[in-house]
Amino acid sequence: MQDAPRLKTFLKDCQDRVAKTLEHVLPAAEQPPTRLHQAMRYAVLGEGKRVRPTLAYASAQALDLAPERVDAGAAAVELIHGYSLIHDDLPAMDDDDLRRGRPSCHKAFDEATAILAGDALQTLAFGVLAQDDAAAPEAPARLRMSAALARAAGSIGMAGGQALDLESEGSDLDLVMLENIHIHKTGALIRASVQMATLACPALEPAKAEALDHYAKCIGLAFQIQDDLLDVEGETDVIGKQSGADAAHEKATYPSLMGIAAAHEAANELISDALASLEPFGAGADPLRWIARYIVSRER
Amino acid sequence: MQDAPRLKTFLKDCQDRVAKTLEHVLPAAEQPPTRLHQAMRYAVLGEGKRVRPTLAYASAQALDLAPERVDAGAAAVELIHGYSLIHDDLPAMDDDDLRRGRPSCHKAFDEATAILAGDALQTLAFGVLAQDDAAAPEAPARLRMSAALARAAGSIGMAGGQALDLESEGSDLDLVMLENIHIHKTGALIRASVQMATLACPALEPAKAEALDHYAKCIGLAFQIQDDLLDVEGETDVIGKQSGADAAHEKATYPSLMGIAAAHEAANELISDALASLEPFGAGADPLRWIARYIVSRER
Repeated sequence: MQDAPRLKTFLKDCQDRVAKTLEHVLPAAEQPPTRLHQAMRYAVLGEGKRVRPTLAYASAQALDLAPERVDAGAAAVELIHGYSLIHDDLPAMDDDDLRRGRPSCHKAFDEATAILAGDALQTLAFGVLAQDDAAAPEAPARLRMSAALARAAGSIGMAGGQALDLESEGSDLDLVMLENIHIHKTGALIRASVQMATLACPALEPAKAEALDHYAKCIGLAFQIQDDLLDVEGETDVIGKQSGADAAHEKATYPSLMGIAAAHEAANELISDALASLEPFGAGADPLRWIARYIVSRER
Repeated sequence: MQDAPRLKTFLKDCQDRVAKTLEHVLPAAEQPPTRLHQAMRYAVLGEGKRVRPTLAYASAQALDLAPERVDAGAAAVELIHGYSLIHDDLPAMDDDDLRRGRPSCHKAFDEATAILAGDALQTLAFGVLAQDDAAAPEAPARLRMSAALARAAGSIGMAGGQALDLESEGSDLDLVMLENIHIHKTGALIRASVQMATLACPALEPAKAEALDHYAKCIGLAFQIQDDLLDVEGETDVIGKQSGADAAHEKATYPSLMGIAAAHEAANELISDALASLEPFGAGADPLRWIARYIVSRER
């Protein structure tokens, strides 16, 4: 893929940038309560693709917005993502022992600490958006970002999607129901990641905000289809979690409902749609284009 | 107690007022995901003393601030409180089957739903503060409220206090360590409740904000001492949770460390201190005075 080296550089820049913010806002490992802070840092720092912060920075670049303006938003979506992974992995939820190739938070620490670490990471996400910072957008914009993040993360967003997902285990899902789960469970936060840039952009034409939102919807769903495909086709040591876990949980997935070939095709169509919505944008949107193409080609 | 009838009326007004906001911001029970929304409503609506919203409204009255200005803040602190009760009751945490005289959320629903309901209630708290509302304070004030709530709820506030509390089970705590737990676990959110009013008040003299903050610190600790005393002295059917639960968990409490009489005395001294800090305020601060006196006289 010809844009792979450029994407790699862009990803690295975004990863470094969000790592710096996260390191700055996360309490030190030696600050009491130390076990809680260690668990928070364990779950958020270190490896991680940083897809959501990267989307925020890439959207900023498409809008000609300085990256400083989305630092808080990029860290906030990653903190929400980190909290959700901890809680999703809990025994009462998906009961996953592995995450990103390491013991999941409740295995590395304990269940109570993992619950609290997730809780505190969510709090921190909203704290980061509310923090005074000269480079951050004006107060009204930051409030809109906070409202958007709350919508995306809450009971009619990500947490609601996880609830729908748990309710559906063992029952017969059709594609519409499956898509509804993913629109909430993963799609909402991916859209919010892009909104961290559009909401930080003063006087943005609504058509551009809508185009980027459409892009986010498409790649969000494609991302999930690819995740399902990786669960079927991937190797445990490459994807960093137990391969075949979905089948073991009798979970409906895109490949199980529509077949592997059709799932690949659906993901590719969504990516074409996402790329089409970027047509009004110039070369500044190239990182968004690279990301879209990366989503369906990634191996983990 | 001569101010009991007036406090009763004031409490009722505050309870009705916050109930109206909560009813407005909580998704309907029939809105999908229904089980999640039912669990959220179960945990937050219905009975509950509403101490924290009442403190916000009473502080507003002391500052001659219209109650509309703290509606969002009052609901937000109650939502955070509601989320913390759900998570604290979980098997991996305090493992409590009863809450406010009813099955705790994970008993009435299930553990996964309870975790998600707590998560989504926390999200909603920050969502409420970020919501556009003509009566709400200006954006910079609401951001400061959001930042204060995040500090109070997070790893160096309430969640951190719960972590310290869990770490300390079975170990020998002294009074300083016990106080440190309570300052974080319950004190931080009580201070934030008062801050929902002081931060909504434009051009407030710092001395008044500090006086109210001192009041909040004192009653927060007194509230916890009284809670410990109720656990020793109260009846299960009156306090609405299992009496003697602290002793069964080998938890250090004020009565266990300093004796029942001395614990009563400490609570009373804190209340005197709280009342003294209200001296610069006129009759508008009477509800805060009633609340302070109520804390050490309550039976549940």
